[in-house]
Amino acid sequence: MQYTSLVTGGAGFIGSHVVTHLIQQNHKVIVLDDLSGGFKENVHPKAIFKEGAITDTQLVNALFEEYTFDYVYHLAAYAAEGLSHFIRKFNYQNNLIGSINLINASVNHAIKCFVFTSSIAVYGDQKLPLQEQQKPQPEDPYGIAKYAVEMDLENAHKLFGLNYITFRPHNVYGPNQNIGDKYRNVVGIFMNQILQNKSLTVFGDGNQSRAFTYIDDVAPYIAKAPAFAKAYNQTFNIGSDIPTTVNTLAQEIATAMKTEVHIEHLEQREEVVHAYSDHSKFSSIFNPSPETPLQEGILKMVDWVYSHGARESSTFENIEITKNLPESWKS
Amino acid sequence: MQYTSLVTGGAGFIGSHVVTHLIQQNHKVIVLDDLSGGFKENVHPKAIFKEGAITDTQLVNALFEEYTFDYVYHLAAYAAEGLSHFIRKFNYQNNLIGSINLINASVNHAIKCFVFTSSIAVYGDQKLPLQEQQKPQPEDPYGIAKYAVEMDLENAHKLFGLNYITFRPHNVYGPNQNIGDKYRNVVGIFMNQILQNKSLTVFGDGNQSRAFTYIDDVAPYIAKAPAFAKAYNQTFNIGSDIPTTVNTLAQEIATAMKTEVHIEHLEQREEVVHAYSDHSKFSSIFNPSPETPLQEGILKMVDWVYSHGARESSTFENIEITKNLPESWKS
Ligand SMILES: NC(=O)c1ccc[n+]([C@@H]2O[C@H](COP(=O)([O-])OP(=O)(O)OC[C@H]3O[C@@H](n4cnc5c(N)ncnc54)[C@H](O)[C@@H]3O)[C@@H](O)[C@H]2O)c1
Ligand SMILES: NC(=O)c1ccc[n+]([C@@H]2O[C@H](COP(=O)([O-])OP(=O)(O)OC[C@H]3O[C@@H](n4cnc5c(N)ncnc54)[C@H](O)[C@@H]3O)[C@@H](O)[C@H]2O)c1
Repeated sequence: MQYTSLVTGGAGFIGSHVVTHLIQQNHKVIVLDDLSGGFKENVHPKAIFKEGAITDTQLVNALFEEYTFDYVYHLAAYAAEGLSHFIRKFNYQNNLIGSINLINASVNHAIKCFVFTSSIAVYGDQKLPLQEQQKPQPEDPYGIAKYAVEMDLENAHKLFGLNYITFRPHNVYGPNQNIGDKYRNVVGIFMNQILQNKSLTVFGDGNQSRAFTYIDDVAPYIAKAPAFAKAYNQTFNIGSDIPTTVNTLAQEIATAMKTEVHIEHLEQREEVVHAYSDHSKFSSIFNPSPETPLQEGILKMVDWVYSHGARESSTFENIEITKNLPESWKS
Repeated sequence: MQYTSLVTGGAGFIGSHVVTHLIQQNHKVIVLDDLSGGFKENVHPKAIFKEGAITDTQLVNALFEEYTFDYVYHLAAYAAEGLSHFIRKFNYQNNLIGSINLINASVNHAIKCFVFTSSIAVYGDQKLPLQEQQKPQPEDPYGIAKYAVEMDLENAHKLFGLNYITFRPHNVYGPNQNIGDKYRNVVGIFMNQILQNKSLTVFGDGNQSRAFTYIDDVAPYIAKAPAFAKAYNQTFNIGSDIPTTVNTLAQEIATAMKTEVHIEHLEQREEVVHAYSDHSKFSSIFNPSPETPLQEGILKMVDWVYSHGARESSTFENIEITKNLPESWKS
């Protein structure tokens, strides 16, 4: 049997990899993406591409009328966590209301499973390692919107029987990532800066740590998740187990790109200092391959970055609150 | 000094009472209400009334330009908790995005305090009595939206210094309540049914209990809250301590309206069975008067209801999901 799957955000970084895995699994794939953060060239040629926004209720409903989706992989979002403080309305509109359009349509059309990429951002500043049984207490609008979608899915399951699988990835990097977004993805930002012979900009002292995760340790599991019955109506941390400081990351990337590190320290930003999560729940069900070492993942991404070149950083246009906006984000 | 206050939802039930108290405290009051659930006749004649929606970002921003608000009392919402399952998008758009417009403007214009009416619905089904230190786990989209606004306010305080006071009322009744909304306010629904010689409709067996709260035990404290420095950036349960079953409530109302009770039991609905909350945190700071006994409050409301007459129940037009919608809500 051939499954039909909708992938929102399928022109984006993680989404485009999920699409590739689904095509390999012989799914018929429809990609819905407004290209606000993704690229047409990322969309697999065998996927049907619809350019449009998940916030467009009519479009979403029409798509569910046109195709009979078995699965919905919902990855579309603007994931600039730090910027979300300053674009609160846009954040909730895009990431929450857009998700609700998809949940409504998924209930109305009784799809088989809704796979959602939430984020480690739902946890906020809590005891490490972060575990699924800890109650979320998100500390920024991005995390609040993700948590609201998680709760809404839980409720839609309870009331309407909609099956879901929620993943909370963190700090994923790899080919197809938008390295021109100065508001997010420190790995891409550093590579873009080196390509342009700029110094690497670090908020604060650079001792904040994250567990950077190579895309191949995430996308395949998201793609095949609906085949794991035990994963239904569950939430999973997913990603690397090994935290690295931002300073060390800068060093690793400079080494891979055969250059010296020049770090420019910017003012400290409102963010969680350390974050890494426990993946035993994920492992117990998905039985994943050993994770890709940071050096290896960076080398693969660097190869891709060289073949694609630097990207102009664009500035987000509709900042809603400028108070306390980091200086480097102002222009 | 005369304070200038914005009251959203000031043409509604609780909002109109808050406005009256503010006028008595000599505030200059601007009411923003789209009359979706409120009535122009509820707006105090000394208040400046702007008909419009909190979801209208331009209008909200223009209002904050026109007036220099000291305080924002944000009560506008569609509070049909049970219906919110079926109008998810409308719920988040109206109750969350609308709130975010007000939070953005309040940050940008550096108001003194943002008073928000959340709801006991944020708790979900938890150990009773509900206490503020319990982590919310809302079980319906209405509660999820309220909790998201609470979290956003906490974050806006942390990042921008916006002061807030959050109240979680429950089951408030009294004069000015819309008794024509068949989706909410069981007290009003029963009175409206008796006025029309109909039987009283009860979801399930009627043994579910709520602590019904007279308006005068809520509105005055919301109005004067900004004068309590210790209440800043805190969240309070507010309302009656005494739970009553829906069956007993029906009996009390019938007695007050000098009629026999005829109950028509409808199918059980997805809702929390019992809910009452602890108000010791509220009492310790606001030192409230003893609560109004149910019989007394009902008699006062019945007087008002007789002088205003029955109201036609209108049907919510844009139901998004009809699956599992209670039969009685279908037409
Ligand atoms: N990259 C990470 O480290 C990470 C970590 C945790 C969670 N996530 C989540 O994973 C998902 C994918 O993230 P990513 O890193 O691939 O980001 P991305 O920006 O590369 O991909 C997101 C895609 O969604 C599209 N999109 C955004 N808003 C849209 C809208 N309203 N309508 C239609 N399309 C829209 C963008 O154009 C983009 O192609 C997101 O939901 C993100 O929140 C990512
Ligand atoms: N009544 C209760 O028992 C209770 C319990 C807990 C919380 N609350 C909260 O208290 C507040 C007031 O509730 P109420 O019982 O007085 O309800 P209500 O319906 O009488 O008042 C709400 C008012 O908001 C207005 N409104 C709704 N959406 C609007 C929008 N988008 N733009 C502008 N105005 C809008 C309505 O026209 C109405 O006048 C709400 O936030 C509600 O969630 C009420």
